[in-house]
Amino acid sequence: MTEKVVINEVGPRDGLQNQSKLLSVEARLGMIQCLVDANISAIEATSFVSPKAVPAMADADMLCRGLPNTDRIDYSVLIPNEKGYELALAAGAKSVAVVLSASEEMNQKNINMSLQRATDVCCTVLRRAQADQIAARAYIAVAFECPFEGKTNPQVVFDLAKDMFSAGAKEVIIADTIGAAHPGEVRALMQHLVAAWGADHLSCHFHDTRGMALANVYAALETGIRKFDASIGGLGGCPFAPGATGNVATEDVVLMLSKMGFDTGIDLGQLVSAVEKVQVLTGNCSGGHSFRWLQGQKEKGLL
Amino acid sequence: MTEKVVINEVGPRDGLQNQSKLLSVEARLGMIQCLVDANISAIEATSFVSPKAVPAMADADMLCRGLPNTDRIDYSVLIPNEKGYELALAAGAKSVAVVLSASEEMNQKNINMSLQRATDVCCTVLRRAQADQIAARAYIAVAFECPFEGKTNPQVVFDLAKDMFSAGAKEVIIADTIGAAHPGEVRALMQHLVAAWGADHLSCHFHDTRGMALANVYAALETGIRKFDASIGGLGGCPFAPGATGNVATEDVVLMLSKMGFDTGIDLGQLVSAVEKVQVLTGNCSGGHSFRWLQGQKEKGLL
Repeated sequence: MTEKVVINEVGPRDGLQNQSKLLSVEARLGMIQCLVDANISAIEATSFVSPKAVPAMADADMLCRGLPNTDRIDYSVLIPNEKGYELALAAGAKSVAVVLSASEEMNQKNINMSLQRATDVCCTVLRRAQADQIAARAYIAVAFECPFEGKTNPQVVFDLAKDMFSAGAKEVIIADTIGAAHPGEVRALMQHLVAAWGADHLSCHFHDTRGMALANVYAALETGIRKFDASIGGLGGCPFAPGATGNVATEDVVLMLSKMGFDTGIDLGQLVSAVEKVQVLTGNCSGGHSFRWLQGQKEKGLL
Repeated sequence: MTEKVVINEVGPRDGLQNQSKLLSVEARLGMIQCLVDANISAIEATSFVSPKAVPAMADADMLCRGLPNTDRIDYSVLIPNEKGYELALAAGAKSVAVVLSASEEMNQKNINMSLQRATDVCCTVLRRAQADQIAARAYIAVAFECPFEGKTNPQVVFDLAKDMFSAGAKEVIIADTIGAAHPGEVRALMQHLVAAWGADHLSCHFHDTRGMALANVYAALETGIRKFDASIGGLGGCPFAPGATGNVATEDVVLMLSKMGFDTGIDLGQLVSAVEKVQVLTGNCSGGHSFRWLQGQKEKGLL
């Protein structure tokens, strides 16, 4: 039996939040439908942030209500604070994710809070979610390097992960928000975290700013990690983190995993169609590194 | 002391041989000068193949005579057979590389020989080189997958490597000619070869067709490999191997190695200039995955 790897598609959230062209709820739902058609089982659908701060994520409640196939897809939404949590709950969200940056200055720039205050807010939300029986995960952003403070101390990440698990997070996602990590340090950090909490409760989120995202996915795989965030077509970026360009492309990760013999359940041919849809919708997506090759294979009827 | 990794720059050969725009000897020497300026220590300068078969490599003898800084750069040339060896020698080459494909059909398509005949020719050239005190290396092409025959049997690669070493090759380069390898199989094959001959006598050559080249470099690094082929700007391809797009980009490999703490001796700022030169010369080079980021860093004076 082949080993499973879960791809959490973050294109509709991390992929779109930094685009200059704003997409309507209908357009975003159309994009999500393409991802569902490709048989992706986990999708980060949107975030309940202030539409003033991130206009691309406006009308998150309307989007949540329109999500297709809610019975078989694990949809999650990103929430910045208790207010976001309440809005998400009211919109019917069953799975939420909080975000905590591992540096003082990134929290200030991103959400105008100190690291301690941000940690407290995340813990409060995680505890409320546990009481409400809402699945809750926690991102640790800038887990390798912060655009303002430089290299992140792995011990800080470890301690924050501990706080998140203690407060009830069922999963901690280690995020290289600005695509600055190299595979050697990914391996070291993930080994340390896996030893403490087991690979089943950890996941990784890589950006491809310096071209190393797929190498980092491989390095994390080697430590036992079997869940990864990825963004269709490599769309992505963070509006508050300078230099945070696209996420690792879903098609690149799925192709590598499939060649390595892992089962993601995802249809590569439909994934190519999803990239093409995103290219039309955003007008700003060249696709992952493997996209042209995949497209050629599809044209030849080989996918 | 930081550990050294050698980059063998193959842009002037593998990078240019498949370009539709033919470059003059002067233009190719100009490209090589930029690579020398970036402090690259090993360069595959050209190949002594028939100019009818590969017009881009015409006037290889003239190019060899014009090479700059021959005292400190390890220049090598690719040779297909004994005639090529003699031409290379006459042009003053001090280091040569033979190419052997690991499948029957690839040898037929590439050089119109059977695998056995190609092996014999490579062995003959390697023995002559040894007698002539010329440094000789051997490529094993399509070492992971052949565009005609599919997956390559690792034992075939192992046995061919053994033949090459027995005939006097000082190094065997394992080449993923069509960019089809995944890091799991790179790791497995290189571990097997390193156990037999030691990492010092092995090197890897990856193409990025499916976006996995840098992950493959990392996988090979993990087995102890400390020498890699790479092509400036990711230029490359093989005219006789369908689907063999660009090589792994030198700037991507050097950036990853530098972040991992390895010493390549290469100047990243000058490497950006070399990519820019190649873009002008070929009109067909978008640069590696990290290129835009590197260019941004250079503009800010950070490289």
